[in-house]
Amino acid sequence: MKNYSFIISLCFLLVSSTLISQNTSEDSLMLRKIFTKALTEGKSYDWLDYLSNQIGSRLSGSLEAENAVKYTEEELKQLGVDKVWLQPVMVPKWTRGFKEYAYIETLSGETTVTDICALGGSVPTPNLGIKAEVVEVKGLEDLAMLGKDKIEGKIVFFNRPMDASLISTFEAYGGAVDQRSRGAAEASKYGAVGVLVRSMNLRLDDFPHAGAMNYGDTPTNQRIPAASISTNGAEYLSNLLSLQPNLKFYYKLNCKTFDDVQSYNVIGEITGSEQPDKYIVVGGHLDSWDLGDGSHDDGAGCVQSMEVLRILKEIGYKPKHTLRVVLFMNEENGLRGGLKYAEEAKRKNEKHLLALESDAGGFTPRGFSFESNAATLAQVRSWAPLFKPYNIHLFEKGHGGADIGPLAENAEVLAGLRPDSQRYFDYHHAANDTFDAVNKRELELGAASMASLVYLFDKYGTK
Amino acid sequence: MKNYSFIISLCFLLVSSTLISQNTSEDSLMLRKIFTKALTEGKSYDWLDYLSNQIGSRLSGSLEAENAVKYTEEELKQLGVDKVWLQPVMVPKWTRGFKEYAYIETLSGETTVTDICALGGSVPTPNLGIKAEVVEVKGLEDLAMLGKDKIEGKIVFFNRPMDASLISTFEAYGGAVDQRSRGAAEASKYGAVGVLVRSMNLRLDDFPHAGAMNYGDTPTNQRIPAASISTNGAEYLSNLLSLQPNLKFYYKLNCKTFDDVQSYNVIGEITGSEQPDKYIVVGGHLDSWDLGDGSHDDGAGCVQSMEVLRILKEIGYKPKHTLRVVLFMNEENGLRGGLKYAEEAKRKNEKHLLALESDAGGFTPRGFSFESNAATLAQVRSWAPLFKPYNIHLFEKGHGGADIGPLAENAEVLAGLRPDSQRYFDYHHAANDTFDAVNKRELELGAASMASLVYLFDKYGTK
Repeated sequence: MKNYSFIISLCFLLVSSTLISQNTSEDSLMLRKIFTKALTEGKSYDWLDYLSNQIGSRLSGSLEAENAVKYTEEELKQLGVDKVWLQPVMVPKWTRGFKEYAYIETLSGETTVTDICALGGSVPTPNLGIKAEVVEVKGLEDLAMLGKDKIEGKIVFFNRPMDASLISTFEAYGGAVDQRSRGAAEASKYGAVGVLVRSMNLRLDDFPHAGAMNYGDTPTNQRIPAASISTNGAEYLSNLLSLQPNLKFYYKLNCKTFDDVQSYNVIGEITGSEQPDKYIVVGGHLDSWDLGDGSHDDGAGCVQSMEVLRILKEIGYKPKHTLRVVLFMNEENGLRGGLKYAEEAKRKNEKHLLALESDAGGFTPRGFSFESNAATLAQVRSWAPLFKPYNIHLFEKGHGGADIGPLAENAEVLAGLRPDSQRYFDYHHAANDTFDAVNKRELELGAASMASLVYLFDKYGTK
Repeated sequence: MKNYSFIISLCFLLVSSTLISQNTSEDSLMLRKIFTKALTEGKSYDWLDYLSNQIGSRLSGSLEAENAVKYTEEELKQLGVDKVWLQPVMVPKWTRGFKEYAYIETLSGETTVTDICALGGSVPTPNLGIKAEVVEVKGLEDLAMLGKDKIEGKIVFFNRPMDASLISTFEAYGGAVDQRSRGAAEASKYGAVGVLVRSMNLRLDDFPHAGAMNYGDTPTNQRIPAASISTNGAEYLSNLLSLQPNLKFYYKLNCKTFDDVQSYNVIGEITGSEQPDKYIVVGGHLDSWDLGDGSHDDGAGCVQSMEVLRILKEIGYKPKHTLRVVLFMNEENGLRGGLKYAEEAKRKNEKHLLALESDAGGFTPRGFSFESNAATLAQVRSWAPLFKPYNIHLFEKGHGGADIGPLAENAEVLAGLRPDSQRYFDYHHAANDTFDAVNKRELELGAASMASLVYLFDKYGTK
């Protein structure tokens, strides 16, 4: 008996290790196919060219956002996937209006025009603009220290730079962005008449970077206008302030908030062959800020997500689960698309195996971050050797993505593509986030990485 | 006795593991210091700005190359390292002369001007230029197939693109560059009057890429002029040829080879505290092609190498071995600097522990490649956890670098910095290899990675 069981164990071991190595070799061939398709017959770059150069920036509620909905819906239909539809969602509409204008006025009356932009969601200045003295701070915590005495009637200038010593620029962003998002709400408590925020940019240049701010529970009549100033502008202003603490800053913002308007998430799907009622979602957000053309943020993520479906379809892979691409509307200033998709998934009880978002730029992919249990993360790490030929090496616990966040209770795994982050904040929300800042191969490698992860999850499920 | 030996073993284990973890924590603090210094008080980007924008391209034998020698010598002296000197070396002098000119002439006599550049080392065309029919081939091996009948009197157009499906663009380059380096020598055997080579560029654009070619043992009077054509130009010409196989191509090259001239390797060193007669070298090459300003190739490698010495000095690290930066002259068209340095090292019997080169662009570093024995590679891989916070993950067997290659017999380890390669050939040897193509943080991360590797080798030696 002992001998038998030994032989049986041995056979089992042989069979299972053969199966594993067969699978591994099948998988590695599949990844090779995916990457070759993306790099030699890719479509993502052409799609991005159209989105960026023919349509342009796509702020929620804008004509361009609607054009982008129509364009991507049509392109998904052209792919011949099983189903393409628009998911209605009401979105905020905030517009910049005429370009902002600002200058520094020294004590001798000289003025120097400086580059600013209104922050998303800001109220406008009065028609004649605001001119006031400036008080420079390094963060929200400085406000209480200075107190109402030193702040009332002034413009608060938040000038804490992103921390250049951090390797992840997203971490550096996370450490500075409270100035942008909550600066106006906090400064108004001390009687400030406006805020000026150093752009979330590690580089010194002349581009003011947009981005969302919110007033929290500040009463409507106490809301003060908020603008972003370029990093060069911030350095210049700070230097001048050290010489002339009583200089004045003038700015005029023409922004306006309208009633919500109708918009859509764009969705396409390939029906699953074995578990059609279990979903894998890949997505990015179709809206962008209104400066530049939103090529990295997040045109790249949209076309990469579309490319995942196209590649898998063209190489003849039949997903077991229903594979969806979702182009979310309104990530930048409301997240309404992400919330709506999650709400509908809950209502229809649509269970998701995986939701994967690309919203960190179209740069060389380094790996993925996961919101999952430990067993699934271990499983993903067991796939690392498959990704090694493509220099994909990061498989970490971490944030999936803003749009897929609300889906958490109906998804086993949330994941985010992690491209190299060094250049991202050079372009983020600024006028230079344009098509020429995207490298074709880097974009394509991201799409291929996403398609590969989707393939592996579809094939093996979660642990 | 058994118990004693058990206790002794345990003690040994405890002591050694404490030592290891002390070392590890000391090392990880040191790497953190190095990276912070590079990212927050770096000097490499300013140096590169000067080299690129004040001096410009630095072809061997040019005035600019000599200016770069003087500038970097002076900057190294400013660092206050122990010794700075120039190592004389005779270098080739080849000049482009007046800008090249080329056009395609269709059968109906229409002409279209197209962007070309002479390949380095090429003979000029006759004064009136060359006008001839074109025979397009996909590589050297096509020549024999076509034979003298179809080639004689014509211009051979080598148009095999780099293979976009390869993940390493250097591998793609390696698979295509024989057309550039040996195309003219081979085509002349079949009576061709000139060659035109598709630029070594994975992107479609209008930049012709320079680079070295050589005639091998082709007799002087049989040498034919060789030029590079932009990828867009190559596609256009190829399309036209499919419609009009008998169209003509005209080009005129004004290049000239002079007698060798005097130049220098620039060397700075910090004397070792324990083994001053054993050397660690970091380097890049100071010369560049004459288009663009050689920012990625290899201004980046030079300033990163200088930065290694500066960082280690400024954080107060005293190297055990003598630490040298060598800025090699003439990598691009002769390798004379690398050969001279190795020759002198041999003559003086200077043993090298490590030679580390950066010559693959100033992009985000991914790791290093090593020419070493297996034990040393294993040792390096044991350091991988120290590099993980900086996303440095590649520690592979592979090419060190052209300039340090000749040093092999006097060096235990040759190593090369491996930056992300996706964008490198967009700029390589072309007019767009300029300062603005380099990202400050990516450059600095490379310098910090190199300093970290140097620190670890200096501290632990080789296995």
